[in-house]
Amino acid sequence: MTHRIAILGASGYTGAELVRLIAQHPNMEIAALSGERKAGMTMAEVFPHLRHMDLPPLCRIEDMDFTGIDLCFCALPHKTSQEVIRDLPANLKIVDLSADFRLRDPAAYKQWYGSDHAAPEIQDEAVYGLTEFYRDDIAAARLVAGTGCNAATGQYALRPLISAGVIDLDEIVLDLKCAVSGAGRSLKENLLHAELSEGYNAYSFGGTHRHLGEFDQEFSKLAGRPVRVQFTPHLIPANRGILATVYVRGDARQVHDTLCSAYESEPFLRMLPFGEAPSTHHVRGSNFCHLGVAADRIEGRAIVFAALDNLTKGSSGQALQNANLMLGEQETLGLMMAPLFP
Amino acid sequence: MTHRIAILGASGYTGAELVRLIAQHPNMEIAALSGERKAGMTMAEVFPHLRHMDLPPLCRIEDMDFTGIDLCFCALPHKTSQEVIRDLPANLKIVDLSADFRLRDPAAYKQWYGSDHAAPEIQDEAVYGLTEFYRDDIAAARLVAGTGCNAATGQYALRPLISAGVIDLDEIVLDLKCAVSGAGRSLKENLLHAELSEGYNAYSFGGTHRHLGEFDQEFSKLAGRPVRVQFTPHLIPANRGILATVYVRGDARQVHDTLCSAYESEPFLRMLPFGEAPSTHHVRGSNFCHLGVAADRIEGRAIVFAALDNLTKGSSGQALQNANLMLGEQETLGLMMAPLFP
Amino acid sequence: MTHRIAILGASGYTGAELVRLIAQHPNMEIAALSGERKAGMTMAEVFPHLRHMDLPPLCRIEDMDFTGIDLCFCALPHKTSQEVIRDLPANLKIVDLSADFRLRDPAAYKQWYGSDHAAPEIQDEAVYGLTEFYRDDIAAARLVAGTGCNAATGQYALRPLISAGVIDLDEIVLDLKCAVSGAGRSLKENLLHAELSEGYNAYSFGGTHRHLGEFDQEFSKLAGRPVRVQFTPHLIPANRGILATVYVRGDARQVHDTLCSAYESEPFLRMLPFGEAPSTHHVRGSNFCHLGVAADRIEGRAIVFAALDNLTKGSSGQALQNANLMLGEQETLGLMMAPLFP
Amino acid sequence: MTHRIAILGASGYTGAELVRLIAQHPNMEIAALSGERKAGMTMAEVFPHLRHMDLPPLCRIEDMDFTGIDLCFCALPHKTSQEVIRDLPANLKIVDLSADFRLRDPAAYKQWYGSDHAAPEIQDEAVYGLTEFYRDDIAAARLVAGTGCNAATGQYALRPLISAGVIDLDEIVLDLKCAVSGAGRSLKENLLHAELSEGYNAYSFGGTHRHLGEFDQEFSKLAGRPVRVQFTPHLIPANRGILATVYVRGDARQVHDTLCSAYESEPFLRMLPFGEAPSTHHVRGSNFCHLGVAADRIEGRAIVFAALDNLTKGSSGQALQNANLMLGEQETLGLMMAPLFP
Repeated sequence: MTHRIAILGASGYTGAELVRLIAQHPNMEIAALSGERKAGMTMAEVFPHLRHMDLPPLCRIEDMDFTGIDLCFCALPHKTSQEVIRDLPANLKIVDLSADFRLRDPAAYKQWYGSDHAAPEIQDEAVYGLTEFYRDDIAAARLVAGTGCNAATGQYALRPLISAGVIDLDEIVLDLKCAVSGAGRSLKENLLHAELSEGYNAYSFGGTHRHLGEFDQEFSKLAGRPVRVQFTPHLIPANRGILATVYVRGDARQVHDTLCSAYESEPFLRMLPFGEAPSTHHVRGSNFCHLGVAADRIEGRAIVFAALDNLTKGSSGQALQNANLMLGEQETLGLMMAPLFP
Repeated sequence: MTHRIAILGASGYTGAELVRLIAQHPNMEIAALSGERKAGMTMAEVFPHLRHMDLPPLCRIEDMDFTGIDLCFCALPHKTSQEVIRDLPANLKIVDLSADFRLRDPAAYKQWYGSDHAAPEIQDEAVYGLTEFYRDDIAAARLVAGTGCNAATGQYALRPLISAGVIDLDEIVLDLKCAVSGAGRSLKENLLHAELSEGYNAYSFGGTHRHLGEFDQEFSKLAGRPVRVQFTPHLIPANRGILATVYVRGDARQVHDTLCSAYESEPFLRMLPFGEAPSTHHVRGSNFCHLGVAADRIEGRAIVFAALDNLTKGSSGQALQNANLMLGEQETLGLMMAPLFP
Repeated sequence: MTHRIAILGASGYTGAELVRLIAQHPNMEIAALSGERKAGMTMAEVFPHLRHMDLPPLCRIEDMDFTGIDLCFCALPHKTSQEVIRDLPANLKIVDLSADFRLRDPAAYKQWYGSDHAAPEIQDEAVYGLTEFYRDDIAAARLVAGTGCNAATGQYALRPLISAGVIDLDEIVLDLKCAVSGAGRSLKENLLHAELSEGYNAYSFGGTHRHLGEFDQEFSKLAGRPVRVQFTPHLIPANRGILATVYVRGDARQVHDTLCSAYESEPFLRMLPFGEAPSTHHVRGSNFCHLGVAADRIEGRAIVFAALDNLTKGSSGQALQNANLMLGEQETLGLMMAPLFP
Repeated sequence: MTHRIAILGASGYTGAELVRLIAQHPNMEIAALSGERKAGMTMAEVFPHLRHMDLPPLCRIEDMDFTGIDLCFCALPHKTSQEVIRDLPANLKIVDLSADFRLRDPAAYKQWYGSDHAAPEIQDEAVYGLTEFYRDDIAAARLVAGTGCNAATGQYALRPLISAGVIDLDEIVLDLKCAVSGAGRSLKENLLHAELSEGYNAYSFGGTHRHLGEFDQEFSKLAGRPVRVQFTPHLIPANRGILATVYVRGDARQVHDTLCSAYESEPFLRMLPFGEAPSTHHVRGSNFCHLGVAADRIEGRAIVFAALDNLTKGSSGQALQNANLMLGEQETLGLMMAPLFP
């Protein structure tokens, strides 16, 4: 049976990545695509790499017919997403890739995003979309909120350790290295090739990055008490990839064992042998997350590394993984492609 | 039915690309992998991006058991390939990715490669592997010789034009821009990141590049008289991609029409509207070749552009396309994945 | 004696490059800087790489005091430049880096730039700024029009050959590979890192690129009859550099000899031995242009290569070289720094 | 007065960088260059970006005449350097860029470098070359040991803080992001463009990187008790640059104030305003180090950022700065060039 899929916001990178992935999915077909500023254009005009596909043209959301749509991906900007989703048919299954439904607490939402939520009742209904940890909820959900790509990376490195109590909860430092596509297809000076290539720097440091809202919510929930991590993202001259270097206090072997046990049956989370570190080179374009653990020379300190592709496992691949669950398909369907290297 | 596949030379880029592609092929499984210098290692050690796959370890060719192998890809270095293939079981279907069986004429082989061929009798049997132009021969062949990646790009731009007689055969200039993976995983100073990134230059110019042997052979055969093109390749700071800018004399509209007609039913060769030029960005990691034609302001001159991924359509994707034909499968099976962008 | 310098349009790349170069010039000091949209900001805010310098803040042009300014560089956008320069003090020495004063013929200006010139009387007075060929005129000029960066590269490869009559004037093909900073600090989707890195494509092909106006003007003047070249620029994923691959008809040795003779005493134009090709890697950040000549296998055809840094020799370095002449300084003063490699 | 300079190991990146810098130095001239494997070649052949310079050809060290040489830079590989320097004329001033003379304690040397030192008596004589902190010793020294590039970056971030006692000495985490030229011109698979570009990973993590020997020596000396930092370097797809993200415990404002005071008169160490972070983009090709400090949301934690160019301030620029002192020149002579951006 083929599921009919709509994508809102198909003119951005996560929208295009969804199209790329669904193109390889045996049981999905793309029935409708929206793109506000590019309505009326074909996808081949907006994304020439998709020109071989037979796709519907981009339309405006208000012109989209949701009859017969089985699931809708929303790849719209933050704040826009909540208003659009509020007005979609109430029985439509939705995977939202924006930040709008990730935080459960309206006060936390306001703290991190600066305004009241436009659809608090739906916010309450949404399920947090970190598949490996919310499988059953996601399978039963109508609305799933895709996680932040940095938030996903950090959580893969840390959740089992927090649950198992094998690290010091007050001594967690996340140093993230992020590729540029995470910033979207936005016209900003610092995202120009001439400004970005051949150099790198920290951004949104000091506790200001919005994905901290997700870390706080999820880690505190896991620990049963407030957990606040230190988080410093850096912009790296590459197009895809997130590498988390996570400094923790605990026994490195135990840390490795804990992650190995937790991820033993996970199809997409791959543990490296103890003492090895992953590279973003080796996950590009795939739905895999590679994880490694090493001991530091200072006793009682361990380093956890996690690498994934922000557009795939960090965003659109995760979204498709969740959609598979929501539609009763095998979780891995259409997602087992190997990374592109070199 | 699942075909059992062997890959010789799996520790190079084209070998790894074959594994990546076959991983997505519904009717093939990898039964054996060789890698001389890395025999005994797992593919995960040699190519960590393949660590999620359940693959046989790398062995030496002499230790490989070809019983039950349906088809063997040879991704070995030039000159090595001919000696190895000469000694393989005589009934084994083979797709060779090296340069060893591309040229029919032993004298031409000696001219371009500097020594006598070690297996001239097999050289004669091999079919030139430019799928779209040798389909029937390939389907019936035991040994198919994959084309040079530059040679494929140039031929896609030119073959229908030469056949149709719509361009001046003595006035063809191919200016190629090649990404670095075409040089293989070889330890050369000019391939280091520090030497290559952020700059570019011509190489093997002036009529010395070996792929000219293929152009000469194929274009002369098509034209029924000697055709010698001018060919200048350039090394560009990117990992995948070839862009051919081909300067021809003829009516640009007629040139466009001729290519459109020739490629109308081709699944992988995609013509852009008249006056548009393709980009290597939009074919990365895929088996597509995008082609465009524009008129110059000087009357009677046209520019033909062709863009493909050297490792996929230019090499391993082509090899798999040929293998599909040789094994009675649909030509496009496992090859319709969308390009990776950005 | 120290010359007091003003730079209009200091918030763009050529403006910043002027500041970088003048910082190393023993006899110049920066007295005033303008930047319309960034007026009021310091240069350290706009270009943090200049934070160690003691520079005047950016002001609006109308707020700039030209008293005591010895020379003014205009690095303003096309069309803006002509209006601003028209209204500057009539005795102020000016080096303009825009396209506004490059073409002598008002009709040609209108053809390539799409509107009438706002200051045709000054247009007539301006001297074309290709230093090596207009030295005396430049030394005596009040207003020098910097050349296009592509136009400079092509002319270095071709002017002596056209003058000497050693190539066929109707058979010149310029295939250019240009780095992205030539497009300026402009917010365009195709200039984003995510869109540009790792791929490449032709642009403004077919005879539409505005630098053809300069080629036509200069080459026809040299030849004493109309000369129209074929010109195809390509955008390459690098920040600095232009490589011209020029296909000509003539004796390659004679071509090489002609260029060697012409450039024998030139401090910045460096001929490579016959048969070698330059790389943009080796001129980055410098005022040098490296040139090479090779014979093709097809008799009577030669390839001329020229490589330079578009922001230095192609623009701001050229401007400073001209300013030196206009101010009675040694032409090479402050410009002999070695390229940055790697 | 012009000092006559010899460079041993001129065929590597730091050797070439020395030549580039000395080319702009008013009071130095290059009198002799060695390069073992490339002896007999010209620098233009080995480094075409230096082809405009009039340089002595590369010779073997045993063929070099040290008569009249005022100072010798040794840019030789580790271990080779100590043997060569041991046998150089005893009164020759030397700046060594290798690791051989950085550690004072023979046991520490053996621990980090795996063998006994070949010239322990000279090891004892050498002065550690971190200019800003050893000025007087360097001015009086015969042999100065250039620091590790990572070691320099980390020390600029931390030394004044350790001296002033404003941070917790047991809670220092250095996360470094290093560009590829730091690995030298070495033929290693992971340094190939195809392997490195577009991805990144940690290396020599867990306390195994040799520059820890320098951190241990210097920080412990400063503190008067053992200090051991946690240090994780990462390889980033860029050619030049080191960014240190240093996690410390202390009052962020006090940390900023302490660094501002310490570096107030330093020509090359530039403090950013509180709350801002530097980028490697803005120091490329220069001798500047940009530093920033920010507070984390977790009270009592601060982040110190330091960015420099590993080949310039981290190595050859530092060496020249030291040579200036040793030769009685102004410390900044020939080193005030602005960074290259973009």
